[in-house]
Order: sequence, then structure tokens, then C-alpha cells
Amino acid sequence: MKLYTAAGPPNPRRVEMFLAEKGIHDIERVLVDLNAGEHKKADFLARNPRTKVPLLELDDGRFLAESRAICSYLETVCPSPNLMGRDGEERAFIEMIDRQIEFDLFSSIVNCVRHTHPGLAALEQPQFADFGTAQGQKMREAARWFDSHLAAHPYAAGERFTIADITAFCAIEFARLVRFKPGQEGMANLQAWRDRIAGRASASA
Amino acid sequence: MKLYTAAGPPNPRRVEMFLAEKGIHDIERVLVDLNAGEHKKADFLARNPRTKVPLLELDDGRFLAESRAICSYLETVCPSPNLMGRDGEERAFIEMIDRQIEFDLFSSIVNCVRHTHPGLAALEQPQFADFGTAQGQKMREAARWFDSHLAAHPYAAGERFTIADITAFCAIEFARLVRFKPGQEGMANLQAWRDRIAGRASASA
Repeated sequence: MKLYTAAGPPNPRRVEMFLAEKGIHDIERVLVDLNAGEHKKADFLARNPRTKVPLLELDDGRFLAESRAICSYLETVCPSPNLMGRDGEERAFIEMIDRQIEFDLFSSIVNCVRHTHPGLAALEQPQFADFGTAQGQKMREAARWFDSHLAAHPYAAGERFTIADITAFCAIEFARLVRFKPGQEGMANLQAWRDRIAGRASASA
Repeated sequence: MKLYTAAGPPNPRRVEMFLAEKGIHDIERVLVDLNAGEHKKADFLARNPRTKVPLLELDDGRFLAESRAICSYLETVCPSPNLMGRDGEERAFIEMIDRQIEFDLFSSIVNCVRHTHPGLAALEQPQFADFGTAQGQKMREAARWFDSHLAAHPYAAGERFTIADITAFCAIEFARLVRFKPGQEGMANLQAWRDRIAGRASASA
């Protein structure tokens, strides 16, 4: 397998963290330079017309895009430790919280960064600052919900670490670009969870 | 099982169409009046603090939110006909195209409608018209991509009908609110696929 990826954005990080949790270390990496627009050039477009990283090239030559779909594939070829559910029912409940985190927290953070951060002006055209600022409010609402959720559960999906913690962690870390720090905004559960996840070896993958 | 749902929005429709394809007809429905704000009142919040429909109440009293997670659960309790992949590898590839449709096509359509349609002004506060208009352009870009994809494949995921067709169909139908009709914009493959899917019994579920 070969992984087309980039350093910095939260989606490539999700897959790197998933790989590290699985203990998969033998995948070749191809770094795609987003600032140089490599993801929109013919070479990469032939691999993924949707212009996105991460992208996994399988040994049979097929390409698999979308972070979570790549994780689903990796979960199949390397089932242990389980990160996405041991049966269909648990898989559905983990998918629920993972999507709630992705749509409410992750996407509002990404939208806030993309539409308000000067460093993203070249990638996100056009930027809508008002929309980005409103997304920053949604980010805080979602973070407060997740903070209260973590008051009752040690991990996003309940009692054990799963893909949903990876999604949330990569989102919260990316939010540092817009100076969001949960502990400074009274979200003690979220800060404690963040610090706990940051202590895992996979967090520096 | 009991399904909390609403008439009109595309996410409840995804689950209704999935249920119809599965031939599951014995689920009790509870209609939630979004215009009256029922989804933000105490009764519903106790069931789903994220205020979203559809929401599935299981026979053991647990609540499962998020359209696609509900579909994953239904696929487990009613495996035939298969709509999400027969093994882990096929599941990953169907998840890929389903997410590409959801993030590029479905979400740009929903954002365009929410931020530009007067009828959605009460639900989407505040509306950002410029952002909504730009999302309308992204919707057309994504629709053109999907149109070219359908030139080579009869269905979204390839040779057979899957959940990804449901996601795309509910998106395209919702786009009628902003007067988007693929055939009128030169997207003949997309229009032909849409008309074919519209002919399925599940399309009027």
C-alpha cells in the first residue's frame, strides 16, 4: 500500500493516527505539496479527480479516498485493536458519535479556519469572513456539547478509545490555528480528555 | 423500533428510502414539526441533544441518530438486499463514494438551500447569502463531476444500486428548491440516472 498525504491538515492526520494505533508502520508515504497546488495537477488528478488527500493506493492499483473510508479498509485488513466497532450494532453507534463530531465539531473548526485564517486564503477561494466567524461560534457550541458528553464518558464513544476520539482530537488540535483552547474557555472535561489523548504515542504520529 | 422523522428535509428522506429498499414497513413514525421548533424542545432534547432528525429509538430504549449510522444499524438487522457492502473491502469503497457525494454534492446543496432560500430563514440563523451563492457554484461543480462519473458507471458505486445512490438522489431532489435541474444544464448522464432512480418504488417512500 502507498499513502498520498500531506503534513498539517487534519484529515491526513486522522489516517496517520489510525495507522499508528493499529501499529501499521510499513506503508510508503508520498507527500503532496498542497501549497504548490500539486493536488490539482494532472499527476494527482489521475489518481483522485476529487483532488483530496489522504489517498490510499492499494497493492492491486486501486485508489481509495476519504479518510474514514480508508480507516474502514485498514480496519478490515488489520482488525486489531478494534477502533470502529466489533459488530454491526457497535459499528453503528461508533459511526453515530463519529459523525456528530465530524459534522458539528470538525467541520465547524475546518470552516472557521478556512474562512478566517490568512494562511488558508490561497486554498479556500473565496473566503467568507462573516461565515467563518459564525462557524467559530458553532465550533464553541459543539465543543461545549462534547465537553458535557465527556463529563459522563471517558472516551467519545463511551468506555474505550475509538476512531471517534481520533476525529475529535485532530479537530481540536487544528482549532489551535484559531487560538481555541478548551481549558481557557471553561471546558475542563474536554481539556482533560485532550491532554489524555495527547499522551498516546499515536498523537505524535 | 420507532423513527422520529420529518417530511421534507433530505436526511429523513435518506432513511425512508433505505427502509423502503429493505422492505421494512413495520416501524412506527413520530413526526417532528421542525417549523414549530419541536426538535429544540425539552421532550425531543431528552432523546437527542443534537436536535436532529431522523432519530431511531431501538426496542431496548437506546437512541441512534445520524442518517448513515441508522442505515448501518438497519443493514445489520436486515442484511438483504445489501446496500452498504458485502464485506469490509466493498464497504470501504461504498463509504468512499457515499462520502464524496455527501461532502461535495449533498452538503453544497444543503448549504445553498439553507443560506439562500427564504423558506429556510427561520431554521438557518443567520443566513449568509454570498456563501450560499458560492455553495451553489460548488454544487454545480460536484454535479458535473458526478455526471462524468455516471458516464462510466450505471450507479454511484459502480454496477449496482447502493446507499450512495440514495444519498445522491435525495440531494438532487432537494436541489429543486434552488431550481437545479441537471438536464437543463447539460448533465445528461445525471438526469438519466436521476430519472431511473425516480422510477424505483423507494423514491416515493
